[in-house]
Amino acid sequence: MSKPTRRDLSRYVPLLDWGRRYDQATLGADLMAAVIVTIMLIPQSLAYALLAGLPPEMGLYASVAPLLAYAVFGTSRTLAVGPVAVVSLMTAAAIGNLGLEGAEFAAAALVLAGLSGVILLAMGLFRLGFLANFLSHPVIAGFITASGLLIALSQMGHVLGIQTSGDTVIELVEGLVTNLPQTNLPTLVIGLATLAFLFWVRRGLKPLLRRLGAGPRLADLLARAGPVAAVAVSTAAVWAFGLDSQGVAIVGAVPQGLPPLTLPSFDLSLWSSLAGSALLISIIGFVESVSVAQTLAAKRRQRIVPDQELIGLGASNIAASLTGGYPVTGGFARSVVNFDAGAETPAAGAFTAVGIGLAALLLTPLLWFLPKAVLAATIIVAVLSLVDLHVLRRAWGYSRADFTAVAATILLTLLFGVELGVSSGVGLSIVLHLYRTSRPHVAEVGRVPETEHFRNINRHDVLTDPTLLTIRIDESLYFANARFLEDYVYDRIAGAEDLRHVVLMCSAVNEIDMSALESLEAINHRLRDTGLCLHLSEVKGPVMDKLRRTAFLTELTGQVFLSQYDAMRALAPKESPCQQGPRRAEGSNPTG
Amino acid sequence: MSKPTRRDLSRYVPLLDWGRRYDQATLGADLMAAVIVTIMLIPQSLAYALLAGLPPEMGLYASVAPLLAYAVFGTSRTLAVGPVAVVSLMTAAAIGNLGLEGAEFAAAALVLAGLSGVILLAMGLFRLGFLANFLSHPVIAGFITASGLLIALSQMGHVLGIQTSGDTVIELVEGLVTNLPQTNLPTLVIGLATLAFLFWVRRGLKPLLRRLGAGPRLADLLARAGPVAAVAVSTAAVWAFGLDSQGVAIVGAVPQGLPPLTLPSFDLSLWSSLAGSALLISIIGFVESVSVAQTLAAKRRQRIVPDQELIGLGASNIAASLTGGYPVTGGFARSVVNFDAGAETPAAGAFTAVGIGLAALLLTPLLWFLPKAVLAATIIVAVLSLVDLHVLRRAWGYSRADFTAVAATILLTLLFGVELGVSSGVGLSIVLHLYRTSRPHVAEVGRVPETEHFRNINRHDVLTDPTLLTIRIDESLYFANARFLEDYVYDRIAGAEDLRHVVLMCSAVNEIDMSALESLEAINHRLRDTGLCLHLSEVKGPVMDKLRRTAFLTELTGQVFLSQYDAMRALAPKESPCQQGPRRAEGSNPTG
Repeated sequence: MSKPTRRDLSRYVPLLDWGRRYDQATLGADLMAAVIVTIMLIPQSLAYALLAGLPPEMGLYASVAPLLAYAVFGTSRTLAVGPVAVVSLMTAAAIGNLGLEGAEFAAAALVLAGLSGVILLAMGLFRLGFLANFLSHPVIAGFITASGLLIALSQMGHVLGIQTSGDTVIELVEGLVTNLPQTNLPTLVIGLATLAFLFWVRRGLKPLLRRLGAGPRLADLLARAGPVAAVAVSTAAVWAFGLDSQGVAIVGAVPQGLPPLTLPSFDLSLWSSLAGSALLISIIGFVESVSVAQTLAAKRRQRIVPDQELIGLGASNIAASLTGGYPVTGGFARSVVNFDAGAETPAAGAFTAVGIGLAALLLTPLLWFLPKAVLAATIIVAVLSLVDLHVLRRAWGYSRADFTAVAATILLTLLFGVELGVSSGVGLSIVLHLYRTSRPHVAEVGRVPETEHFRNINRHDVLTDPTLLTIRIDESLYFANARFLEDYVYDRIAGAEDLRHVVLMCSAVNEIDMSALESLEAINHRLRDTGLCLHLSEVKGPVMDKLRRTAFLTELTGQVFLSQYDAMRALAPKESPCQQGPRRAEGSNPTG
Repeated sequence: MSKPTRRDLSRYVPLLDWGRRYDQATLGADLMAAVIVTIMLIPQSLAYALLAGLPPEMGLYASVAPLLAYAVFGTSRTLAVGPVAVVSLMTAAAIGNLGLEGAEFAAAALVLAGLSGVILLAMGLFRLGFLANFLSHPVIAGFITASGLLIALSQMGHVLGIQTSGDTVIELVEGLVTNLPQTNLPTLVIGLATLAFLFWVRRGLKPLLRRLGAGPRLADLLARAGPVAAVAVSTAAVWAFGLDSQGVAIVGAVPQGLPPLTLPSFDLSLWSSLAGSALLISIIGFVESVSVAQTLAAKRRQRIVPDQELIGLGASNIAASLTGGYPVTGGFARSVVNFDAGAETPAAGAFTAVGIGLAALLLTPLLWFLPKAVLAATIIVAVLSLVDLHVLRRAWGYSRADFTAVAATILLTLLFGVELGVSSGVGLSIVLHLYRTSRPHVAEVGRVPETEHFRNINRHDVLTDPTLLTIRIDESLYFANARFLEDYVYDRIAGAEDLRHVVLMCSAVNEIDMSALESLEAINHRLRDTGLCLHLSEVKGPVMDKLRRTAFLTELTGQVFLSQYDAMRALAPKESPCQQGPRRAEGSNPTG
């Protein structure tokens, strides 16, 4: 093995690439972005930790080392990594299954982060990024929407000041309804006020500030500061009026200091019981992260390298598990903010990490009186932007299969929780695809006048010949539809008197597997017995290469034509008797 | 709902169709075939019951009522239904999992037959026959071969006169080796002698008889009678020399009389624990049965109706569960014999049922001294004809994917038993297919001189134009390969200076799902931003219908051309600037 050049190295450590060209202008831009993202991230990290069922400081810890790790290994210039809503929900569900409490629950979160870090790293090194492609857009859209609803519901309890728990819509609603009488009024007031305020900040504040003459960046900064303001004001209020003694749940003690060094437990049974969840979390997190990273990169004509992204996110999660965090990934809203704020390199992420580190070091005592209802409100406002039910109408308008996938994913996620929801969504979309390809569209084609182009006789005025039947199979031929083709051909030739030649036009056949090959051989023999020749046309190179390795071409009663037009010229006009063995039409070289 | 006509009825009860045209000649042919099949079936039913771990009479019972049921509902004229090797092995495995003994074991067999009868019936009524298509030929071939080996191994114990059990190669070989010292010499002698005799009958007897001047049919009949002769002679020998007292295991008491009426137990836990196995048995049995039925039907220009076959086999299995039998299906060897012997209608099956019924009524006392070793030998000789290892070489020569499927199915079946073997074989072949379609073949094409035909520039001397890039995607565009296409296009256009137009030639695109649509929209925007027009050509009708329901066509910077030749004529010669919205090439109507 040769000594790695700097080029190889910087492929795995992009820092070496952009780091060398780092200058003061970039520094300024990155610092500005870092400030905005930090302000936004402090309440979010606390809130998502709460959502994951973890102590708030773990949210802060998950927003320090992971960001540094991504800054070193990530390929996106603007992706902001950290705790995100969906992954926090999945973390809660995954560990919830084990029925752990308190310290054990937190320890399991470290293991989960470590596991998903290892999984992502392995996927990156073995170039398994393509696995994420099996999550179809409808499934992702449905899953995110359903998760958003579940999250919002799960937080309502905090806004009402009542105990709720559960992983499904039914459990959550049940909990809310049964405990509604215990609603704590002061909590409710704080919660609703915060919700109203945050929604207003989202919709109304920024335009207002602009009208008041604030510069766009300042307006943006102030708007982003909304949640922090809510946190500060509500905390002060609770402290001033001693609302905690009136039953307002508060965050309480948050240890002061930098993220601790932690080592996830090596309890094998724990690892194996979390492995499945870790795989789901890794793939969901990767897909969410890569899609936002790609969208942002495209806007600046940058490219991201999915397989390297896996390594970046893997490193982040391993960092999280070693510094008291929990599973992280690239956040959507956060990255957009980072991008809009002008971040130019991953250094912005590193500066954000420093910001959060300082907060953990200095501000945590101030969080004692922070009402949980306010954190819940920030979550609700954040996740409701994930809920997109229009996707249902879009899918319905486009195709039943896609609609089924979206609807099923939403329903199953709401009714049976995130893990079962997303996995059955993936399974369903694969089954639907296989089902469709198992009964392919087949068209009988004729020549479009004055052209050498052949099209469906039912859709176009085309020229045909009674002695010549041309069938265009609109699907690769493989085991799932091999028998379908046999049945179709036999039915079609039954009682076709003048018919002499059957041409299978293979322009849409991208593969012929062994099962389909046996069907083709059967068709060839059956046609020969009934005095018909079987021909192929427009067979693709890779398919032809495979057929050449078989006896099929020698047994074929007819020929293989380069183009359907060649086939028609050769076969249609005159009566041409079957030839044994393959004869080629003049000048035709049936490949490619 | 309208009153069913005789035509409807005879679709579900084919008997009404062929029964009306039944005459004396047919009767004679059917009777002759029935005699031969009966002679062949008596020892087989006993042997396969033994293989399934059931008392021998259940094999006889499974060869009476089920045959009558199939004669009424089946569509194949010559399929011979009854206990078969592979399904017997699967029955043993399925019930073995539950760790039942004696009477409970037999009762479970009734439930298994009832379950698979219901499953087959349901599949037939709901037209789910296509499900069987997901068993690819390589998987079936591998599974049958591996099962044959497992069966032969499992019977060696009887030939040696030692106790063996197990569902996998390792367990079986282990059992044989450890118990080898207990080999019973008289049993071994009988077993080997029978094996030698039966192999000779297969290879040598029929030609010999023909040379001795016997008519082909008589020779065939005598050859088929080989196993019966072995049974008779060996039974007599054991009785005459009292070999049973020397440790030769014999069949012993077989109740005399017609099949009893039985009702499978309705223990729900038993049903649910057998449901999975029943599904596998149903599908495997259906596939095996349908493939032999189709082969034979084709020889006489007859058709079988797969969905009605499901109903026929379902009825047979329900009949089996109601008359003391166990799961049945169409047997390969048996049906070929029935066919060769001249059977013309399912009545032959009914007559066979009568023959077996008589045997159960009259001959069972004679079976007392029948050595199990002889039955085992008949099984071994029968199943070794199923073993076909050449399929490995054929698959290797054709494609790695098919080879992997065969090899994996054989290995997994041998190492982990039939159920895990076949299910993982199916899973694997599906994954391999998805993986292949997730990284499709993509060709850059140019025009073949003097034609309107476009082919791969790397395989043909074709005409191209530097301002025009035409990409032919050789796969349907769906979630698994949507991102692949994006990456390919972006990589390809990077640094192509003179390029003005990109044409996606969709002749091989049989579907565009929602995920792929979003990728196409992304590509369209990205190309527009870089000053390139995106065009489509040769879009199929069904795909075009779907695209028309979206905003994509209005956003498309370029056009949709009926044929690639139209696209080239319109775009290549002159510089044509991007148009906003879709403009159509003259006279082109982009469908079908």
